[in-house]
Amino acid sequence: MTTASTPPVPDLAPMLAFGFLLLAPLAIAGLSLVNAGLGRSRSAAQALLGSVAIAAVSFIAFAGVGACFAGAGGAAVFTAAGKSWNWIGTGAILLGQMSKWPMEAQLGVLFECLAVALAGLIPWGAGADRMRLAAGWATAAALSVVLFPLLAHWVWGGGWLAELGANFGLGAGFLDGGGAGTVHVLGGAGALAVVWLAGARRGKFPKEGLATAMPGHNATYVLFGCLLALMGWMAFNSAGALLWLHAEPSRLVVTAINTMLAAAGALGSTLVVTWVRFGKPDASLCANGWLAGLVTSSACAALVSPAAALVTGVVMGIATPLLVEALELALSIDDPSGAISVHFMGGLWGLFAAGVFAPQRGQILAQLVGIATLLGVFLPAVYLLFELIHRLVPFRVDSDGERLGMDLYELGGGAYPEFVIHRDESYH
Amino acid sequence: MTTASTPPVPDLAPMLAFGFLLLAPLAIAGLSLVNAGLGRSRSAAQALLGSVAIAAVSFIAFAGVGACFAGAGGAAVFTAAGKSWNWIGTGAILLGQMSKWPMEAQLGVLFECLAVALAGLIPWGAGADRMRLAAGWATAAALSVVLFPLLAHWVWGGGWLAELGANFGLGAGFLDGGGAGTVHVLGGAGALAVVWLAGARRGKFPKEGLATAMPGHNATYVLFGCLLALMGWMAFNSAGALLWLHAEPSRLVVTAINTMLAAAGALGSTLVVTWVRFGKPDASLCANGWLAGLVTSSACAALVSPAAALVTGVVMGIATPLLVEALELALSIDDPSGAISVHFMGGLWGLFAAGVFAPQRGQILAQLVGIATLLGVFLPAVYLLFELIHRLVPFRVDSDGERLGMDLYELGGGAYPEFVIHRDESYH
Amino acid sequence: MTTASTPPVPDLAPMLAFGFLLLAPLAIAGLSLVNAGLGRSRSAAQALLGSVAIAAVSFIAFAGVGACFAGAGGAAVFTAAGKSWNWIGTGAILLGQMSKWPMEAQLGVLFECLAVALAGLIPWGAGADRMRLAAGWATAAALSVVLFPLLAHWVWGGGWLAELGANFGLGAGFLDGGGAGTVHVLGGAGALAVVWLAGARRGKFPKEGLATAMPGHNATYVLFGCLLALMGWMAFNSAGALLWLHAEPSRLVVTAINTMLAAAGALGSTLVVTWVRFGKPDASLCANGWLAGLVTSSACAALVSPAAALVTGVVMGIATPLLVEALELALSIDDPSGAISVHFMGGLWGLFAAGVFAPQRGQILAQLVGIATLLGVFLPAVYLLFELIHRLVPFRVDSDGERLGMDLYELGGGAYPEFVIHRDESYH
Repeated sequence: MTTASTPPVPDLAPMLAFGFLLLAPLAIAGLSLVNAGLGRSRSAAQALLGSVAIAAVSFIAFAGVGACFAGAGGAAVFTAAGKSWNWIGTGAILLGQMSKWPMEAQLGVLFECLAVALAGLIPWGAGADRMRLAAGWATAAALSVVLFPLLAHWVWGGGWLAELGANFGLGAGFLDGGGAGTVHVLGGAGALAVVWLAGARRGKFPKEGLATAMPGHNATYVLFGCLLALMGWMAFNSAGALLWLHAEPSRLVVTAINTMLAAAGALGSTLVVTWVRFGKPDASLCANGWLAGLVTSSACAALVSPAAALVTGVVMGIATPLLVEALELALSIDDPSGAISVHFMGGLWGLFAAGVFAPQRGQILAQLVGIATLLGVFLPAVYLLFELIHRLVPFRVDSDGERLGMDLYELGGGAYPEFVIHRDESYH
Repeated sequence: MTTASTPPVPDLAPMLAFGFLLLAPLAIAGLSLVNAGLGRSRSAAQALLGSVAIAAVSFIAFAGVGACFAGAGGAAVFTAAGKSWNWIGTGAILLGQMSKWPMEAQLGVLFECLAVALAGLIPWGAGADRMRLAAGWATAAALSVVLFPLLAHWVWGGGWLAELGANFGLGAGFLDGGGAGTVHVLGGAGALAVVWLAGARRGKFPKEGLATAMPGHNATYVLFGCLLALMGWMAFNSAGALLWLHAEPSRLVVTAINTMLAAAGALGSTLVVTWVRFGKPDASLCANGWLAGLVTSSACAALVSPAAALVTGVVMGIATPLLVEALELALSIDDPSGAISVHFMGGLWGLFAAGVFAPQRGQILAQLVGIATLLGVFLPAVYLLFELIHRLVPFRVDSDGERLGMDLYELGGGAYPEFVIHRDESYH
Repeated sequence: MTTASTPPVPDLAPMLAFGFLLLAPLAIAGLSLVNAGLGRSRSAAQALLGSVAIAAVSFIAFAGVGACFAGAGGAAVFTAAGKSWNWIGTGAILLGQMSKWPMEAQLGVLFECLAVALAGLIPWGAGADRMRLAAGWATAAALSVVLFPLLAHWVWGGGWLAELGANFGLGAGFLDGGGAGTVHVLGGAGALAVVWLAGARRGKFPKEGLATAMPGHNATYVLFGCLLALMGWMAFNSAGALLWLHAEPSRLVVTAINTMLAAAGALGSTLVVTWVRFGKPDASLCANGWLAGLVTSSACAALVSPAAALVTGVVMGIATPLLVEALELALSIDDPSGAISVHFMGGLWGLFAAGVFAPQRGQILAQLVGIATLLGVFLPAVYLLFELIHRLVPFRVDSDGERLGMDLYELGGGAYPEFVIHRDESYH
């Protein structure tokens, strides 16, 4: 132990944040499993190899390059209208000299490294069963190197959104402790771009009749993944409360309970809504509801009361199945993982609700500026960047690939080679 | 970080307990997966959606109402025979003003919120393949609102069982650091009520011949779930040692190792017993043995020596397969998850063994009073409450539902729609 | 809480190490799932029951006996050439009086108890689909009682390898914070012995033609297991940095990020290598690459810079698929889990790279002495011990067992009794 030899006793709060971050990869593992379970069996290995590799790409791209732009160390600031606008970080590449950085900066990079990997999974889930591996990695790299660092710097790295309170008197500045905006709205914008650019799965929207239901191939993966995701979210929200919101440690228990209540409330209301609409509860939509509740907690958990967290979740749980249905039936959008409803809409609603329920005066205005920035800057930026990538690395596999299944086509072998799978001609 | 701005440095022990509790949901995730794996494939989605929703119901019901009765804040006390009997807590609903509570009280609610969700899974596992979703949620709500809070107040909230030492000189009062009684005996009593009220699965006990073996549909879920459960138990036992037993942090390592040894010893002896009886080790019973060992550790781990924890586990591991067989063959009880043997019997034995092996004088008497309370008050109370619920929300699906499988009947779709499943006429 | 009543505030670093160790079983759970997924479906229950029971055997054998020899408490020292050689610990059996030991010694036992269980899984994975349960447990017990304690004492318990710096001026002595040598090279040596003694699976190397590809039965288990393993490794490496390397807590974040980068770099390069060689990335080999990167991090993560950790992983990721192919095609070695390449070779390379990239002067010499000890003492010792065990408990099931599948033959029932499995005559 380091006791005798280390005069300065390390602070408790950073060490706690570190411990929480060791649990945060459960959000990545859980979401990967949910996404794989919501896709087809003939794409399951590709879905999961894609997820593991997206984590790898994100770690390397962010640690190598992205972290330079995200950090709070050096920063480029310009002054306009008598105010300073801190718009991008200027750190060292590949985390040079990292162990000499202040502890808080090191922890920020670890949080962001894990957060950007989670963000990269969101478009990948939306592209399930048709998006090529290389496209998944390219989109994750683009998020890790460019867009996420910029947004993270604005929100967490002392950038202008964080300074809205100090500079313009808007509450405590834009607050997003768990990444509702930086991770989920950003990733959800990527999901929107993917479904637009890649198009629907073959047979999803036949020329005549209704959209084809394509149930996920393994509901146990989906629901078990939800339980793991809960833990990952509790970890992210707790670490973010300490790192980004400078919360007192005494605030942590409420943060954890709010995370649980947001997910629970959302699941409950999705369950009731689907029961009423379809006569039976729908397991996939309930999983979507649970995750959407978690996404709202990314914004709210550390700021609001348990009652407010529950209400925020309940509202999101009502909206989720309606949004999923509207996207599918009214807009003919094929989003197998429900990423747009869960992450994009859940994140936006969570950020708004955090403004409504947070105790600070004027917080709602700060949140609205953040939401406007996400919609006005990052949504089009994601679309443009992904469109560019799509030209270099076409997102969609060719029609042979879709018929064979992504596993055979991209990996040369299936996830379940010994199990007999139904031939389902209607999808071929 | 909060260093400069927070004069009072937060205590280490509460923050540790919080960190451990972030891991505790692995007990919920692990047990859910074990239960799903021990049931039929045509009920797997219903089993897991039930589990996730039971967690949600428990979180909301306990945080909303149950916590008022469980807590140590206000309490109703009556005086009889010259002694004060603290019998129920009187807190605020929906965790009002929670962030102003003492840290210890906040952590207690978080522990209990997770613990009651775990308790709610136990009757659900016993009702696998035939119990309706609505009945699972109703039973979980009943535990969360009424029975668990009362018991938790008596044991952990300064109630009369906790005060047995101070008031009657019985050891250190009734000790149950990890919830062997409050979670597992209580949940196990619910399992007993469920198997009684719901009856056996169709075809389990044919008119002629022996009981039908109905092996779980996925042994990898069952065994992998056991490994996750180990971690959840280590977390609950460690957090409980700090919160409920006021153990020194230096006691934590022994607590964790005792948890591992209890599970390991129980698995080992179940393995030997099944090998001797059946000629081969039985994977499902071994999983039951491992879990039963963990349940004993919920009472013992923080109190006894590693040797005593090992012996307690070994004894439970011998008993588990014999109990499972006796319940099935002698009493015609159909308990697919083995919940009665694992949780009810394991919890009782653990509480007793803790009294035998704990260093305090007179501890065995305090444990016996606790056990008598569980058997004399809570077992009948659970039965009566569940009987009442059963009249409002019949536990058992109708015979059509059982033939179709719970997934198709209650959710309208199966967990594994693309996999070819054996038609097994003997069960139809 | 213990605040008021406990005058000496507990140190932070030991409590952190304890918290990290609660997460370390995810390495065991993850590796068990990877191994099961890489084997056949008709052996899956046996693979996982074997893994759980290997954990149990290891916990009991190490806590009961092995810990006496590993510990830093008492030790046998002999003097030769004017130097003292501390060669074995002499502690109490069954962790007697453990709660009175210094915290550091208690934590060491907890770390080692979990580490030896991980080591025991490595030969078991190499023997997949043909190794008998009893042989798996016997080899795990042998590692736990004899070889691991001796090696752990030498490396972590103040033994002569740890003292290489003080006694011979070789850097800081042999450094292995996460168990690259004590766990992975040792376990990998066991894997080598197993494949040698048990031989290849039936039909793996037909008399004519190439080796038969026998893909794992469930790629989702394999890839999801990789994500869980990442967390287990982050936990082991962080705890080991504090316990064995006496690192400052401020070094922890770099340790965690290095673990992520080593895995990510290795996955990335394996992916490219397999894509180039086979025209498509190979999911199983990518999983092997990821794990091999993690194994290198066991030696490097706490010592080197992020750039060095990434390079070490990338090199290992290039080597892994080439090693797997060379072992299979050139040496006709059948190692279903790739354990020899991943753990044995990954561990050796990690230890060497740690010497190359560590800042201490002369560290490379200390690492080479450690590597020579592993190859010169422990590799033959493992082989001899396993050969002896093989005579008492033949490793390999008879040919009937292999044809039926390990599940039916050893457990009397399959892992997936309701799923229809392809009959694959070519393997029979």
